[in-house]
Amino acid sequence: MDEPPNTATATTAITTTTTATTTTTTTATMPAPLGSHLTRTLRAFQIYGANTNVGKTIFSTILAKASRRHFPAEHVFYLKPVSTGAPEDADDGHVARFAAAEGVRAECLLQYSDPVSPHLVAVEPPTDESLLSTIRSRIAAYRTPTPSTLLLETAGGVHSPTLSGASQADLYRPLRLPVLLVADARLGGISASIAAFECLHMRGYDVEGVLLFADAYYRNDGYLRRYFARRGISTVVVPAPPPPPPREEEEGDQDREAMQSYYEARCGDAAVREMLLGLKRGHDRRIEKLAGMADEAVGTIWYPFTQHRGLAAGAVAAIDSAHGDFFQTYAGGGEEDDALLGATFDGSASWWTQGLGHANPELTLAAAYAAGRYGHVMFANAVHEPGLELAKTLLAGLSGPGGRMARVFYSDNGSTGCEVAVKMGLRASRARYGWDHRQREAGVIGLKGSYHGDTIGVMDCAEPGVYNGEAEWYRGRGHWFDFPKVGMKRGRWTIEVPEEMRADLGPDVAMASLSDIFDLQHRTASELGKSYQKHILKTLERLTQAEGRRFGAAIIEPLVLGAGGMLFCDPLFQHTLVATIRGHPGLFSPAAAAPADSNAWSGLPVIFDEVFTGMYRLGRLSAASFLQTEADISVHAKLLTGGLLPLCATLASESVFGAFLGGEKKDALLHGHSYTAHAVGCSVARESVRMLVGMDERGDWAAAKADWRQEGEEVGEVGEVWSVWTRAFVERVSFIGEVESVWALGSVLAVNLRAGDNAGYSSDAAQGFLQKMGSRDSREWNVHARALGNVVYIMASQTTGAKTVEVMQEEILKALGA
Amino acid sequence: MDEPPNTATATTAITTTTTATTTTTTTATMPAPLGSHLTRTLRAFQIYGANTNVGKTIFSTILAKASRRHFPAEHVFYLKPVSTGAPEDADDGHVARFAAAEGVRAECLLQYSDPVSPHLVAVEPPTDESLLSTIRSRIAAYRTPTPSTLLLETAGGVHSPTLSGASQADLYRPLRLPVLLVADARLGGISASIAAFECLHMRGYDVEGVLLFADAYYRNDGYLRRYFARRGISTVVVPAPPPPPPREEEEGDQDREAMQSYYEARCGDAAVREMLLGLKRGHDRRIEKLAGMADEAVGTIWYPFTQHRGLAAGAVAAIDSAHGDFFQTYAGGGEEDDALLGATFDGSASWWTQGLGHANPELTLAAAYAAGRYGHVMFANAVHEPGLELAKTLLAGLSGPGGRMARVFYSDNGSTGCEVAVKMGLRASRARYGWDHRQREAGVIGLKGSYHGDTIGVMDCAEPGVYNGEAEWYRGRGHWFDFPKVGMKRGRWTIEVPEEMRADLGPDVAMASLSDIFDLQHRTASELGKSYQKHILKTLERLTQAEGRRFGAAIIEPLVLGAGGMLFCDPLFQHTLVATIRGHPGLFSPAAAAPADSNAWSGLPVIFDEVFTGMYRLGRLSAASFLQTEADISVHAKLLTGGLLPLCATLASESVFGAFLGGEKKDALLHGHSYTAHAVGCSVARESVRMLVGMDERGDWAAAKADWRQEGEEVGEVGEVWSVWTRAFVERVSFIGEVESVWALGSVLAVNLRAGDNAGYSSDAAQGFLQKMGSRDSREWNVHARALGNVVYIMASQTTGAKTVEVMQEEILKALGA
Repeated sequence: MDEPPNTATATTAITTTTTATTTTTTTATMPAPLGSHLTRTLRAFQIYGANTNVGKTIFSTILAKASRRHFPAEHVFYLKPVSTGAPEDADDGHVARFAAAEGVRAECLLQYSDPVSPHLVAVEPPTDESLLSTIRSRIAAYRTPTPSTLLLETAGGVHSPTLSGASQADLYRPLRLPVLLVADARLGGISASIAAFECLHMRGYDVEGVLLFADAYYRNDGYLRRYFARRGISTVVVPAPPPPPPREEEEGDQDREAMQSYYEARCGDAAVREMLLGLKRGHDRRIEKLAGMADEAVGTIWYPFTQHRGLAAGAVAAIDSAHGDFFQTYAGGGEEDDALLGATFDGSASWWTQGLGHANPELTLAAAYAAGRYGHVMFANAVHEPGLELAKTLLAGLSGPGGRMARVFYSDNGSTGCEVAVKMGLRASRARYGWDHRQREAGVIGLKGSYHGDTIGVMDCAEPGVYNGEAEWYRGRGHWFDFPKVGMKRGRWTIEVPEEMRADLGPDVAMASLSDIFDLQHRTASELGKSYQKHILKTLERLTQAEGRRFGAAIIEPLVLGAGGMLFCDPLFQHTLVATIRGHPGLFSPAAAAPADSNAWSGLPVIFDEVFTGMYRLGRLSAASFLQTEADISVHAKLLTGGLLPLCATLASESVFGAFLGGEKKDALLHGHSYTAHAVGCSVARESVRMLVGMDERGDWAAAKADWRQEGEEVGEVGEVWSVWTRAFVERVSFIGEVESVWALGSVLAVNLRAGDNAGYSSDAAQGFLQKMGSRDSREWNVHARALGNVVYIMASQTTGAKTVEVMQEEILKALGA
Repeated sequence: MDEPPNTATATTAITTTTTATTTTTTTATMPAPLGSHLTRTLRAFQIYGANTNVGKTIFSTILAKASRRHFPAEHVFYLKPVSTGAPEDADDGHVARFAAAEGVRAECLLQYSDPVSPHLVAVEPPTDESLLSTIRSRIAAYRTPTPSTLLLETAGGVHSPTLSGASQADLYRPLRLPVLLVADARLGGISASIAAFECLHMRGYDVEGVLLFADAYYRNDGYLRRYFARRGISTVVVPAPPPPPPREEEEGDQDREAMQSYYEARCGDAAVREMLLGLKRGHDRRIEKLAGMADEAVGTIWYPFTQHRGLAAGAVAAIDSAHGDFFQTYAGGGEEDDALLGATFDGSASWWTQGLGHANPELTLAAAYAAGRYGHVMFANAVHEPGLELAKTLLAGLSGPGGRMARVFYSDNGSTGCEVAVKMGLRASRARYGWDHRQREAGVIGLKGSYHGDTIGVMDCAEPGVYNGEAEWYRGRGHWFDFPKVGMKRGRWTIEVPEEMRADLGPDVAMASLSDIFDLQHRTASELGKSYQKHILKTLERLTQAEGRRFGAAIIEPLVLGAGGMLFCDPLFQHTLVATIRGHPGLFSPAAAAPADSNAWSGLPVIFDEVFTGMYRLGRLSAASFLQTEADISVHAKLLTGGLLPLCATLASESVFGAFLGGEKKDALLHGHSYTAHAVGCSVARESVRMLVGMDERGDWAAAKADWRQEGEEVGEVGEVWSVWTRAFVERVSFIGEVESVWALGSVLAVNLRAGDNAGYSSDAAQGFLQKMGSRDSREWNVHARALGNVVYIMASQTTGAKTVEVMQEEILKALGA
């Protein structure tokens, strides 16, 4: 977000800044600014205003005084983080003046003298992050063993700018305190109040109460009361305060007395008392709900990929909300003032989906716009802007230099998108080679350890193994090549050749650098390159000629096989596999020749499943580009929507598309889902791709790219190969005794631990690591991560900051025993 | 939405009402209030204010005058539909006073004298629908062959109440005019302006320009200009108008002259001119884009279930937006003043997904809230409120009296949900019967014409046929029963027995009423009931004993087989099939006995695919309830989210769930999608189910239910069987010569036309009907519908009004040649 220029410097006097307490607070090392404010005892609320001058401070005073009156054993704190205006008019001063006698403690962290928007007055404003960190420290200080209430008052309206120019509603979102909205009783106030509510609601705030002054003329209260009641939110209406004395007069005792008796009367209002009781009930109910969620889930939900026998509620995280890289999860805690919510770093990027941070407001807006413009509309024989524009964006961004990709087919997730891809590939080869599929079925060519989804058709594209063998209708249909894997071992990038392949390929090869591995042009002519060609050709000849097997498509995950165990395949091997298939069409059909059109598929249609590897997960929009070749069909999901909701795009070349052109409906691709190209998903995906490409073009990852560049290497020489994880860190990890090998690409770090006795779905060594990450000594934040066999991986979004990476690296080293 | 009481009657004088023109306009019969305002010549804009008193009328005057100045050959119209305040202060008066000399035509439709919110002044306000209809007529009257501009000014802020108490932004949404937002230059105005923008944006409005007054002190303009520039929206800032004379003075010539010269100066502002030119370019670009979309789509998109050979752009509807039951689609048109957008009734409910109207603001808010609170968060080993609460809602609402359903598994669409269901069923039977699935595979028992999705696993659950036979990896695995179908023929409800089944079941049976068909208790003991039992048992014995086939699950669509051709199966047949399977476990495994637990599955796990039939599509939340039995596994999608985005829930009994409990991970259900239980989908689904159940409980369909109740029949005697289509209409259709039979349930009307020569995927007779519906003489609105073979169906959302149904019925009768 742009920061507005601080042009007001000259005219602005900064009178007081932070309180003594806050300046001495050290900020946490990890920028994990989620709220850990929730305790059994502290009921914290954020006071938002539907507009400026709607009476936020007066309502705060009323609530503060009334709280002390109705709950005399409880503390009441009032916090105004940033205040503009003359110190004598300051909001904390007002609260103190009228409620100090009751023992309400009021404070302000930053005070500016001009009554203008805060973003104009700050000469050297603290960053939002440090302000928030200070606020969190203050909140933590309010935690007492006995019950208390905190009223945190914002400045201006919901979108009034913060010191750095962001919006109030965005700044405070990580705390996600329950909100009390002070509505606007004036003309236009109905609109202002509902608009403010919608802006808060769409940022995931829970508005728990609405307060406003009575106005007999405009009577907004009746309308707003009904509006909010329909949403389960109660509204309190109180008489307006006595008017202030005319400007020229000094604020006198008379005025003060009038306010005193006004507040006195309000403390007696039954509606105010009722709201306070309701808020207390709401607070207790929220905690009760959070505390019970995991238990209820274990008894109700059937979890994906989860053995339920022995699944304890303790193993289920109750997620209250999420923001940026962090979940806010229920942390339990036995003491009355224990923090009940903890920040948890989303180290699996929520199953590899996250790219732009949880609860990203831009993606929310994109989703809401499409929902409000279309809802979902029929896509067969119809088109809408988000669907069309996303298709054009993907075709332009994902086609290689040849511009091969020509068509976009939409479905709902990577699994369905791969089903579509396989149907496309099988039909294209059948159509060209004139096979009768009922007589002899064609399989796929893939790699060992590949994974394309859980629907039965694409399960069949993966080799038989212990897991899919249990699926009653599974039967692997194809051949899967083993392949050499890349990893750093004791400081050296190494191409590890599987035992069984050594006869053909020779021993492991040490490489000078990561980017050398991607220098495919030179490597093709190397000894290893030639061995790859020979091995692949020999194998294909055996399969098709000696064994008489039929293949209809090749399907691979470019560069990294994710679910198979974060296997980093030597890009030269995949490159060579594709080139060999394309260069020897006669293998698959005796009379076949390479087509004249360089964009037409040759040999077999080649499918790239980029569901995990694409969309900048590995640092580039197109994962295919690492292989310096184009697919005939490619599949894109997960990060496609930046991590908000499911959508999949299967791209295909014109030559694949042509196989389905025919005289009859039955010749067409008879596949489609009801929500095909749903406008919300397409709209979010379009925004997401725009933002990701924008980050790349703006150079948001320039420092990380520079860190990974070889000495003497020009920008973009081989194509950028980089990671958010630092090179020095990866090297250091590679020397740790427990570590077999390690690699990092884009936002992914994968550590292959030395196999212990149990190297199954998740090994003991891996479990030990995860446990250390997940239950650090500090309760401030933890890490959610997952393992695949011996491999532990940590993955973040594309927006994870360098500081977070730095802290995470330290934690990872600790957990690995470095 | 509640209407606020009109308590202001006594104090309010209504001075003028509608103009002469508008009172004589007849409203269209069909309540299809989408905007057909867009023509090449008319550039219509809606002026919204970030608040009241931000200068909407002044900016309208500036734009009106400047338009005339810069485009002297063009007309300018100003329309203020509803105005409150003294007539001499009225906004249209102001515009007329200062811009009439330039030839700007200003008018107001409804004028009230008090400057309060419109919803308080109207004694007998017109409904929003009739007001909107009048406005549409006015807009139509502004269409001229030469270019012109219309400025339609709203009242108050974006959410200021309309006469009936709705919000301005919701009232005018069907028009979806491009918006000019007048921002607020005062303290707090940044917040108010951005909040207003977000509220408009999330309703699918395109804000094309922002205007505000300069204010040297608050300087909102700089911040807002940058904010909107990032969103591609230009901002115009002009000096504030001269202050009005003090209250006590009359508005004099001096004041008027000051305003005159103010306006004069603004007309010369380069920024104003630039904005007008930009809006003109935007208007032309919008039309160009709309006109080109279908062509671009035909060259870019790979459509689901579509034969692309010969697919012309003319066959693709370019959908500009949607609202309620209607799309707003590009209609072309050769004349300069032809309406370029037409309303199209969404007669396929966008492939059977729509339930609560397109662009429903409540669903948008639910989606936005979850996006803002969570984004998407990991669901394996985690839980969040929307996922848990939706699961509880579904289990409570969909379990029958026995409370059998115990677990919810989430996936992304009906196809993946059915894959999950089949995996569940096959495993449960294998586990109980101790089969080795690698030696002999178990198939499913289903019905002919069934359909469960397009992924290969569930394609295999459907019988072989012309369409799936072309899929290379398809192989039907199961047995599919033919079955008797229900329909009305010449006024009589008839159970039609297929030719091949007559030997076992006898001839067609005429029934007294639709509800008699559902009186399963009596019918089980009837001759037909006994024949069903015998036939099913005999067939199963032959399959399992004589032919030695193995079955692992039964899967049926309760009551109606949608994609198979809207086949209404005799509920007694499905009921008997389920009862027979459950009553004869020995058929499937020799030693099997019925389990003691009445909620445990018996014989085979029974799957109900309610993807199409459930969630009130046929008038009830649970489609299983029509069969008076419970499934062991059920699948729910489509209407689950009210028609906004993809989500699927597969429910299972504890007895099915138990089959996956084991000592190892591989025993678990190893299925899961990245976006499993995505918070946005769960949140929308929860709101959607709440709204649908609420409509039912509130009695929104009471009239339709009463219409279908038999004489002498008590409410809920057999369970309600009803349709939004009237009984008299269905009877009338059944007598039409072209009609073989007809039925209606819930929001579905299915008409089986007499087979012509071509009874394939879409017969000639059906095509003729669709063509008549889709290109009616009137350009006011059309109908999008689809056919399945000889069957044409019209389906709407659960919120389609009685008036719309009435008009549609007339149109359908016409198209059927009645």
